[in-house]
Amino acid sequence: MKDQIERKRLAILHVLIENKRPVSSKEIAAELAEQGYTITERTVRFHLQAMDDEGLTHYIGKKGRVLTDLGREELSRARAHEKVGFLSSRISQMTYSMNFDYHSCTGKVVVNVSYISRDYAARSAELMSRVFQAGYAMGTKLCLFDEGEEPGELRIPRGYVGIGTICSISLNGVLLREGIPVTSLFGGLLELRNHRPSRFVEIINYDGTTIDPLEIFIKSGMTDYLGATSSGTGLIGASFREIPAEAREKTLEIDAALDALGMRGFYMVGQPGQTLLDIPVGYGNVGAVIIGGLNPVAILEESGIPVQSKALSSLVDYDVLFDYRELPERMKKTVKF
Amino acid sequence: MKDQIERKRLAILHVLIENKRPVSSKEIAAELAEQGYTITERTVRFHLQAMDDEGLTHYIGKKGRVLTDLGREELSRARAHEKVGFLSSRISQMTYSMNFDYHSCTGKVVVNVSYISRDYAARSAELMSRVFQAGYAMGTKLCLFDEGEEPGELRIPRGYVGIGTICSISLNGVLLREGIPVTSLFGGLLELRNHRPSRFVEIINYDGTTIDPLEIFIKSGMTDYLGATSSGTGLIGASFREIPAEAREKTLEIDAALDALGMRGFYMVGQPGQTLLDIPVGYGNVGAVIIGGLNPVAILEESGIPVQSKALSSLVDYDVLFDYRELPERMKKTVKF
Repeated sequence: MKDQIERKRLAILHVLIENKRPVSSKEIAAELAEQGYTITERTVRFHLQAMDDEGLTHYIGKKGRVLTDLGREELSRARAHEKVGFLSSRISQMTYSMNFDYHSCTGKVVVNVSYISRDYAARSAELMSRVFQAGYAMGTKLCLFDEGEEPGELRIPRGYVGIGTICSISLNGVLLREGIPVTSLFGGLLELRNHRPSRFVEIINYDGTTIDPLEIFIKSGMTDYLGATSSGTGLIGASFREIPAEAREKTLEIDAALDALGMRGFYMVGQPGQTLLDIPVGYGNVGAVIIGGLNPVAILEESGIPVQSKALSSLVDYDVLFDYRELPERMKKTVKF
Repeated sequence: MKDQIERKRLAILHVLIENKRPVSSKEIAAELAEQGYTITERTVRFHLQAMDDEGLTHYIGKKGRVLTDLGREELSRARAHEKVGFLSSRISQMTYSMNFDYHSCTGKVVVNVSYISRDYAARSAELMSRVFQAGYAMGTKLCLFDEGEEPGELRIPRGYVGIGTICSISLNGVLLREGIPVTSLFGGLLELRNHRPSRFVEIINYDGTTIDPLEIFIKSGMTDYLGATSSGTGLIGASFREIPAEAREKTLEIDAALDALGMRGFYMVGQPGQTLLDIPVGYGNVGAVIIGGLNPVAILEESGIPVQSKALSSLVDYDVLFDYRELPERMKKTVKF
């Protein structure tokens, strides 16, 4: 019973977060009906009033209600609880949602969103550029969000600047559109020695975690991008995927095309039936090591700049991405420092 | 080929770390032969010389060689690479290794080892006591290690003090000896509201990670013990396990006996076939929420005290454990501050 109520309330909060504008109980009931929920407008109103009292929603007049910061936090915390939260599910959803077409160079790509205090904007631009330049980033492009913008389920707080880095899951989407299925196995910490990949030192499987492995490796300070970008010996985020061996050539062609668009992601592609960095692959598949999308912001945490990150969090038009070499200039324009 | 060499070298490093004294190449060859390796003394010597050059081992004369700090780090990093590193394997190994008997109150229990700078000793004793007192620790006992001591694969560095907290895997061992199999499913961040468990907000499955979930949640600063121990609302580490429904009563009896020995670990035990904190359980099983063994040291990281932790890292005699209320006094004796 308690559980059913919670599920209904979460569904209502989801409608509010997706609309990004005040929504009335009538509209919410209609949207939920479309999704297959049987819920009356009166019941929606009842739950909304209860959630107003708990500070999760805020009534702003006739137009309806908006989500509060507490409501936003509640939604993100409820992920594990909903048990749809394992990262492999999220990967599938985002792979399906994106629609970037690399032939016409249009459509949406998946980005990770991070935000930092504006005070660190200039220094961050410089540090992030180092990671892009060393080739430890997914492609060469990124985007920025101003305070108050709401990429995905986040809102960039006042006084902060948002950074959108291309999520490596975008690769899955591009390959899927070409009929190539990609299995994302795990995220890990990849050890580099003299600028060359050596081995994975820690691994977390995507189907057994509610939090992005790279997101938590960054937060825990286990990465070493400062080393990786200077001496070439360090620890960076990477993920391990499998593709059908028959699709190997086509995948390499697509990767080359993506490279020209600033979206290169493949770091290593194995041979059929052979281990890659000692990781065994399934029969008839090849293994691939993909650069971690969050890598450019990981160096910030390491350098003592507090950064909040959410992997796989939003879709943005390819058009809004710009080359990292413009980052210092763009950062200046965004935060006007 | 390269791979075979690496496997041999790791086996040699393992012998060195387990012996905790200088070991000769002859002894190493003999020990490896016992484990089923076919390796000559000459080959061992060849690898040791190469590892001396790389700084992994150190030749100290006729008695043989010891492991350097670099060698120790190499071993810990090689875990993922060996692909025997998934935590569920480690859990099985440690469950089998421990031999604590709760009837006679003798034998070894599994502990997690953490270390902190001696400068923080007094403050840490106070903070850790808060977690024990609030009941968010596995039992009421712990132990200390002085600088230079080598619990498990760690060595407490000069200027540091080691802390051994009972690892909740000790429960698996006790139950196993009574014929009760325990399946450890995941480690997670448990949200408490008004001192009561509410739900898991993040989850990492044991069979899909090389790093202990709680260890990384602590490092990443995602816990909230300061809140949990003051207002009763916060985030603590806990794990989710399953036991056969038929063993439920016996398990509760054993837990009561362990409680009397300062080793209480069960936080919640579910009903047959029913979800526990919304987590579904397998047919014929009951779910159980177990307190995170590392919880007492997690509060240190949160309070800005740098702490290094290794879960599931060592076996200690039950005899060396003492009640947390003696902690301030024992800490004084150990570090002589």
